[in-house]
Amino acid sequence: DRIEHSTTKVESNLKFLKGEKFQLDDVIEAQQFDRDILSAIFEVAREMETIEKNSRGSQLLNGFLMSTLFYEPSTRTRLSFESAMKRLGGEVLTTENAREFSSAAKGETLEDTIRTVEGYSDIIVMRHFEGGAARRAALTANIPVINAGDGPGQHPTQALLDVYTIKKELGKLDGIKVGLVGDLANGRTVRSLAYLLAKYNNVKIYFVSPEVVRMKEDIKEYLTLKGVDWEESSDLKAVASKCDVVYQTRIQKERFGERTDLYDAARGKYIIDRGVLDVMQKHAVVMHPLPRLDEITVDVDDDPRAAYFRQAKNGLYIRMALLKLLLLVC
Amino acid sequence: DRIEHSTTKVESNLKFLKGEKFQLDDVIEAQQFDRDILSAIFEVAREMETIEKNSRGSQLLNGFLMSTLFYEPSTRTRLSFESAMKRLGGEVLTTENAREFSSAAKGETLEDTIRTVEGYSDIIVMRHFEGGAARRAALTANIPVINAGDGPGQHPTQALLDVYTIKKELGKLDGIKVGLVGDLANGRTVRSLAYLLAKYNNVKIYFVSPEVVRMKEDIKEYLTLKGVDWEESSDLKAVASKCDVVYQTRIQKERFGERTDLYDAARGKYIIDRGVLDVMQKHAVVMHPLPRLDEITVDVDDDPRAAYFRQAKNGLYIRMALLKLLLLVC
Amino acid sequence: DRIEHSTTKVESNLKFLKGEKFQLDDVIEAQQFDRDILSAIFEVAREMETIEKNSRGSQLLNGFLMSTLFYEPSTRTRLSFESAMKRLGGEVLTTENAREFSSAAKGETLEDTIRTVEGYSDIIVMRHFEGGAARRAALTANIPVINAGDGPGQHPTQALLDVYTIKKELGKLDGIKVGLVGDLANGRTVRSLAYLLAKYNNVKIYFVSPEVVRMKEDIKEYLTLKGVDWEESSDLKAVASKCDVVYQTRIQKERFGERTDLYDAARGKYIIDRGVLDVMQKHAVVMHPLPRLDEITVDVDDDPRAAYFRQAKNGLYIRMALLKLLLLVC
Repeated sequence: DRIEHSTTKVESNLKFLKGEKFQLDDVIEAQQFDRDILSAIFEVAREMETIEKNSRGSQLLNGFLMSTLFYEPSTRTRLSFESAMKRLGGEVLTTENAREFSSAAKGETLEDTIRTVEGYSDIIVMRHFEGGAARRAALTANIPVINAGDGPGQHPTQALLDVYTIKKELGKLDGIKVGLVGDLANGRTVRSLAYLLAKYNNVKIYFVSPEVVRMKEDIKEYLTLKGVDWEESSDLKAVASKCDVVYQTRIQKERFGERTDLYDAARGKYIIDRGVLDVMQKHAVVMHPLPRLDEITVDVDDDPRAAYFRQAKNGLYIRMALLKLLLLVC
Repeated sequence: DRIEHSTTKVESNLKFLKGEKFQLDDVIEAQQFDRDILSAIFEVAREMETIEKNSRGSQLLNGFLMSTLFYEPSTRTRLSFESAMKRLGGEVLTTENAREFSSAAKGETLEDTIRTVEGYSDIIVMRHFEGGAARRAALTANIPVINAGDGPGQHPTQALLDVYTIKKELGKLDGIKVGLVGDLANGRTVRSLAYLLAKYNNVKIYFVSPEVVRMKEDIKEYLTLKGVDWEESSDLKAVASKCDVVYQTRIQKERFGERTDLYDAARGKYIIDRGVLDVMQKHAVVMHPLPRLDEITVDVDDDPRAAYFRQAKNGLYIRMALLKLLLLVC
Repeated sequence: DRIEHSTTKVESNLKFLKGEKFQLDDVIEAQQFDRDILSAIFEVAREMETIEKNSRGSQLLNGFLMSTLFYEPSTRTRLSFESAMKRLGGEVLTTENAREFSSAAKGETLEDTIRTVEGYSDIIVMRHFEGGAARRAALTANIPVINAGDGPGQHPTQALLDVYTIKKELGKLDGIKVGLVGDLANGRTVRSLAYLLAKYNNVKIYFVSPEVVRMKEDIKEYLTLKGVDWEESSDLKAVASKCDVVYQTRIQKERFGERTDLYDAARGKYIIDRGVLDVMQKHAVVMHPLPRLDEITVDVDDDPRAAYFRQAKNGLYIRMALLKLLLLVC
């Protein structure tokens, strides 16, 4: 099992001991986090939420420089990281389109680019179009690297903010019921989330997706192996009425190529609307990694259980926490 | 009358009382300003001109973050806002090409984008290709929004800096004679300026433009309604000799489609050159919103009455003033 | 001789007297520097290397604003300048694509753009696609301008960092032997370096290049005129064994048009690999302006004599030094 293997490998390199140094050099993939590290990150994120303008906390990263090296545009993620850095007093060097980095265009290797950029800054946040690019960058760099998404690979800060949001919204992670809805085959978000949820006790996961984009076997096998109870369902309302979290995702048109008929069928199948809200429990929440098209209707936005914009904001606190931990505690 | 209506609607929401809080939540359109608010903004802008490096004033917006969300490029306007924010100690998150904001490209609504970006920053400066976009953003956001131009719609900070420049250059706004020259049909700049000048007493406006790009009826009717004296003329020198301000604008080629013959005729018709300067009064000034092609010859630049580069610089002070007022006084 | 002429002209405008003000208004071309000015810049660069985070030195340029006005992308150079400015506490206004600066696209002259941008900032760093653009900008601006490369013209900060690197690596500039390898016809880097080396005593230069991209006559004549000993060779190992510096450059494919056969022949001809390292002296170094393709094999990187990533880092210190000198000492 690739995930298992990777986990084991990574976890053996990490040792988080309470009261000691935080042993995290880079943030590359969701698999590198165990419960203790997640707890520690969430504790710092909570602290980040209370930092006020011009307070001492807002000067924590004074004098530090972050490079945002984006080989494909992702303005939302970029601005979130840059806001995090600046909220802590740090400074930012930005490139929105590193793919046309004259050097990359001329055939320079990623490794050479990293060796140059690490001379300019204290930490690199990288978005890349190739799976594995973040790991290669981290192996080369003598400064911390945070993966802000590498192609079909990982987007670990999204996974962290998702789990953090559940913790904040529900007050717990053990014993929860989570419905994952929409494109489960292609969404790296739901795959990483399922992986991280397996670290908690008595979690139950429901998969609700159009036939063509069902959750893949590797994750199901992994959950089974870890003793996580899961089931597939085609009844969104039945699932929604039982769950603490309904996690909706966008059906990605680009995955369907010319079969727009399949896309249209898949897209309209599971919509979160007032009708779904009506059957949900009072304490339950609706989440979404955004951007949202019409898979959640806008009349859901005003309901206090609509947590997706709070979730986006949590990304800021998670990224602030990681920047603090990687730059100050290591 | 659309403008009237809009003004009334906006003005009823604004109450600027001397010594009290500045009641301005957003900057969306020129119509929202009355004389008192203009005065107040200009007073703060004057103050901004005196702020020195590393003085207390230059730290006013320490800890504040501005997002410049540009859906179409406008480097001049963007840099002016970013300079204003940084001159006051604030920080900036930039996106030069929000149209390709991965989320917008994927079909996210402007409202959803705004809800996300407002989580990262304290104020949003937005440039958009669609009229009305700034108002939509302001209705959604819980933080202030400044319109940096929305399509054929409004560009209110340009209008403010134009009036501020006249005030600085001439020392007054009542009783002045202003010649508006060039493309009066398509230039939102001259339309907004005419609108704002109507708030002052005994203003006389001359329109000098090629036949195909004459000032539209709505503005003329509005001026008449407000008791502003105006006339059209085809004699640039005669007008220039009488005016306190000669406001030249660029003939926009893109408005003429394939009729480049019409464009060429229009373009060459009213040029400000040394000959025009010769007939102008000693205290009068030449203004232009820039960029300038050849509608003002470069030999005019050295004349002290050439105010257009000072005018561009005034944009900085107006934007500093707005940032201060929106972030600190509200 | 064009270079001679230009030098004379520039040098007559500069007077660097020890203990007095640093008489440098702009950085436009390598020819403007004499030994004393180079010494002075290198001394400040050395100082820059010792500045620590949050020290007083790191606040030197607090309150200063730099505009990076790039008419063509060069992320490496841009990030290096921006890092330099931020390492000294200064702030940056960035445009990565000034060519589409709406104003430039509409036909605004470079001079008008500069007059506007100088109103927003304290110094302009400009990259342009046209030779001579930096000089035009400097003639217009009332604030300092640094040329970050103007087309086939100059890239003076690269020349400075090259000489600075040699000084640091070898401890001296007089009496050294330098091998310039690769594309000597098109590389402005090696041309500027040859020019600057001529200012030192008893320098010997070896040119090693494929026939189609040999060093041009003007530089050879200039070196002869200045009494610099030079020779051409086709034996890379023989040269490498004698030199203190082996300066490799990339063969630029774009120079060969459709003659990819010539490109392939030229490209493979002089490669620095372990075999070349083996014949080099222990104190000698390999330099390269980067980006590097395969003209230096990656197994050379780990050798302590591989100086090219240190060289890139030196660019940061040179740019910090120039920013300090131009903004504080003038």
